Amino acid sequence: MNDQPIGICDSGIGGLTVAKEIIRSLPNENIVYLGDTARVPYGVRDKETITKFAKDLIKFLISKNVKAIVVACNTISATCLPELQEISSVPIIGVIKPTVSEVVNNLKTKTIGVIGTRATVNSNNYELEIKKINNETQVFSQACPLLVPLAEEGFVDHPSTKIIVQEYLEIFKDKNIESLILGCTHYPILRNTIQEVVGENIKIIDPAKPVTSELTNILKTSGLLGNTDKPNRHFYFTDITPQTVKTVNIFFDNNSPGRLEKINLS
Amino acid sequence: MNDQPIGICDSGIGGLTVAKEIIRSLPNENIVYLGDTARVPYGVRDKETITKFAKDLIKFLISKNVKAIVVACNTISATCLPELQEISSVPIIGVIKPTVSEVVNNLKTKTIGVIGTRATVNSNNYELEIKKINNETQVFSQACPLLVPLAEEGFVDHPSTKIIVQEYLEIFKDKNIESLILGCTHYPILRNTIQEVVGENIKIIDPAKPVTSELTNILKTSGLLGNTDKPNRHFYFTDITPQTVKTVNIFFDNNSPGRLEKINLS
Repeated sequence: MNDQPIGICDSGIGGLTVAKEIIRSLPNENIVYLGDTARVPYGVRDKETITKFAKDLIKFLISKNVKAIVVACNTISATCLPELQEISSVPIIGVIKPTVSEVVNNLKTKTIGVIGTRATVNSNNYELEIKKINNETQVFSQACPLLVPLAEEGFVDHPSTKIIVQEYLEIFKDKNIESLILGCTHYPILRNTIQEVVGENIKIIDPAKPVTSELTNILKTSGLLGNTDKPNRHFYFTDITPQTVKTVNIFFDNNSPGRLEKINLS
Repeated sequence: MNDQPIGICDSGIGGLTVAKEIIRSLPNENIVYLGDTARVPYGVRDKETITKFAKDLIKFLISKNVKAIVVACNTISATCLPELQEISSVPIIGVIKPTVSEVVNNLKTKTIGVIGTRATVNSNNYELEIKKINNETQVFSQACPLLVPLAEEGFVDHPSTKIIVQEYLEIFKDKNIESLILGCTHYPILRNTIQEVVGENIKIIDPAKPVTSELTNILKTSGLLGNTDKPNRHFYFTDITPQTVKTVNIFFDNNSPGRLEKINLS
């Protein structure tokens, strides 16, 4: 047993979809979440900038004495995970490998669609990880940069969102994909619209569950699982506006997930 | 005559609409532009964060020996101009006062609409400045947070942009506004769609011209106008991706505006 907190970081609030699943699945763990809301979005920026920002997040979480870190952000996971592992004294779990393993090893999918930010898609990291497991799998990727602001603004069932999703997903039409990976933690918020556009036959993959399973395995095998009766869940953000509070509430179905605090990283 | 450069800063690339007008109107001036593309957008962030970031921009421009600074960003102008003036040794010109003066003093508009980022609208700065000149003017404001990402993604004539603009501008329908101020430097890119939605009778006000006039006046009265034959125009950004270069080209109609360079502010 180990009651050090689990660290979770994200470029902003999108990683809360992963935090929510971790809390649901591991209810007796202390949690420290850090969202870089002062510098979000990362997905439109250059690798060098993303790496610099992500290192700030890891250093902060390590200063909070975490036992493991979940990088609940596809852009960071795709761009600079090895660079982060170099500076970390605790295990770092990205979202991509566990998700890919679920889709290729467990679901045996042969033709996969991936949607994500421009940085995630340009990194080609999903495809590389998929091909490592099964080189014959076909992968088609599409950057959907407007879906993050649409999700953040709560344009969930909005007609404009449907038009934009239809346009972005047009490229999958004749590809016969069996699964579509939501390669950005904001996209589960738009899941219904995405499912409607691609049709019921395509399995939508949300990384939150495979990442939580991977985290649980690592904690179990290292004897690091926690067992706190009254878990302390602390959510740090580099910027907090009324909109941040509103969005956190939307993510957690109006149940406060824990203490919110603004911090300065520099 | 004074050939020190004019400094122009913005949260990102939107301020290039102002830079373009300054270059057109003052072709013999050296220019230093700084866009904080690593931390854009500012308009969704808190006042404290915006002020901290904006001070970094001013310090950088002063280190480049500028003779005056144009804050080509409505969010910064609305949020923390006095705090910036405190730390600056050269005149700082925001976008709001010159624009308001044009609309109220010159155009004699009595009922004005303002659209901008959430931070600009929440600051209420446009309304305060308008009422200082004519307390009987009626002002109606609307935050349009999605217009920045739509403009940045080049969704200029897109059907989804029209739907979103229609929804945002719905509040002006029964207000009989005579002018609509584009209170964000990205919005001129969507000007045609905005004009189409509000109708031809409403005068659209782009701050670029009034700000350039105000700058020209200040330089003239202080004897600071430049007269360089081969002006040096240097565009610094805190992050440069292929998309940055593409957007700069769109803003300048595919004519390179000068030298682009990535810098690190911290």
